[in-house]
Amino acid sequence: MSYQLYYWDGLQGRGEFVRLALEEARADYVEVCRGSESAGLGIGAMMDVLGSKSEPHPPYAPPFLRDGDLLIPQTANILFYLGPKLGLAPRDEGLRYVANGLQLTVADMVTEVHDTHHPLATGLYYEDQKDAAKIRAHDFIDNRIPKFMRYFERVLKQNPDGDQHMVSGALTYVDLSMFQLIDGLHYAFPRAMKRFGEHYPRLAALHDAVAERPNLAAYLTSKRRLAYNETGIFRHYPELDKAAR
Amino acid sequence: MSYQLYYWDGLQGRGEFVRLALEEARADYVEVCRGSESAGLGIGAMMDVLGSKSEPHPPYAPPFLRDGDLLIPQTANILFYLGPKLGLAPRDEGLRYVANGLQLTVADMVTEVHDTHHPLATGLYYEDQKDAAKIRAHDFIDNRIPKFMRYFERVLKQNPDGDQHMVSGALTYVDLSMFQLIDGLHYAFPRAMKRFGEHYPRLAALHDAVAERPNLAAYLTSKRRLAYNETGIFRHYPELDKAAR
Repeated sequence: MSYQLYYWDGLQGRGEFVRLALEEARADYVEVCRGSESAGLGIGAMMDVLGSKSEPHPPYAPPFLRDGDLLIPQTANILFYLGPKLGLAPRDEGLRYVANGLQLTVADMVTEVHDTHHPLATGLYYEDQKDAAKIRAHDFIDNRIPKFMRYFERVLKQNPDGDQHMVSGALTYVDLSMFQLIDGLHYAFPRAMKRFGEHYPRLAALHDAVAERPNLAAYLTSKRRLAYNETGIFRHYPELDKAAR
Repeated sequence: MSYQLYYWDGLQGRGEFVRLALEEARADYVEVCRGSESAGLGIGAMMDVLGSKSEPHPPYAPPFLRDGDLLIPQTANILFYLGPKLGLAPRDEGLRYVANGLQLTVADMVTEVHDTHHPLATGLYYEDQKDAAKIRAHDFIDNRIPKFMRYFERVLKQNPDGDQHMVSGALTYVDLSMFQLIDGLHYAFPRAMKRFGEHYPRLAALHDAVAERPNLAAYLTSKRRLAYNETGIFRHYPELDKAAR
């Protein structure tokens, strides 16, 4: 049976980190919100699960994945679950916790990216928190991007199995998520990211290598890959961008 | 061999979620930063790991746990790893992903608690972002506490194994973390939390039941349990608190 991925339609968002793993593995999956109501799919099907009073383990928010009877919420949790099934997790049991630790650090940075345009309240419009957003975004560019990226570059450098992968000597879902994080930052902050490859050569090489993998390249040019836009996590507001110090 | 827990001394912080599990299980563990330099412990020992150029899998930030050769970062990841070893995870394999999903949702809320006093930049003093903090904290009280807590209350209510535990019919590390989250919110926002038990009776009962467990009660009154203070995640700034709507 195929996996059912529940995530908002119309934006990449956190669901994209799961999609990249499913696409790289050419897994059989249904994008629930993009399906038709007549087939029992569509956004209504997702809202039914979120609001269900009988679901034994209701999720808090999308993305979540259904695999048979199991309903698995939270991006990093979904990838921890799917990784071994898709051949995208380290074979070594211990390294799976290393992978999960890295994925959660990616998730922490993703949350900070979101907060650059919504520092005061998720429920307020961006326009109503623009001044605060500018302060937070510029701090993000000056302090947080360097802090996280220096760390991730060091992870590659110190990986005993080689600097081509975040963990182990083979591709894992963490590499795919790292691609998405860097790619999204290029979209949101092109000025800040201009010299990214000079500062973080291993990360830049990883980004390009992932983009060139046949399954990923096919996905990235397909209609299934939505364009970045200003409803997602990575938003391009020129006033929030600036050259890196 | 005993577990080595690496976390800042002087505050509960994210390390506390791990401590509660270790203490409930009466596990043998060393609090590295509270140890003496002469024993190779202390904060210097933690900084050495964080800055190490030879550590094969360096962590990004505390807390992290060493178990033999394994170095495990990220609070939820540590608990996912420790849970089964300490008898604090569901026995059912599938439910372990439910537990991890809940723990990650607790972590998301913890991050939002932190951002109530640091909405603009982690590197800035609270005093320099007080106005923004007030907006964010009041939004947190009006919108975020109800959204998260209604969800967690519903998780208890819909748990097919009974409403005494977040997942499965027995105590897990998620219950301990839920205790800490509620307890910390009582400290930080006493006015907002005043009628918590009326709105969320199952969560309030869970909080009290956890506090009364013999091992936990012994820990909570010991010197090992640090008092809440204004360097941790849960900070009591009266100007950020207000009655819930």
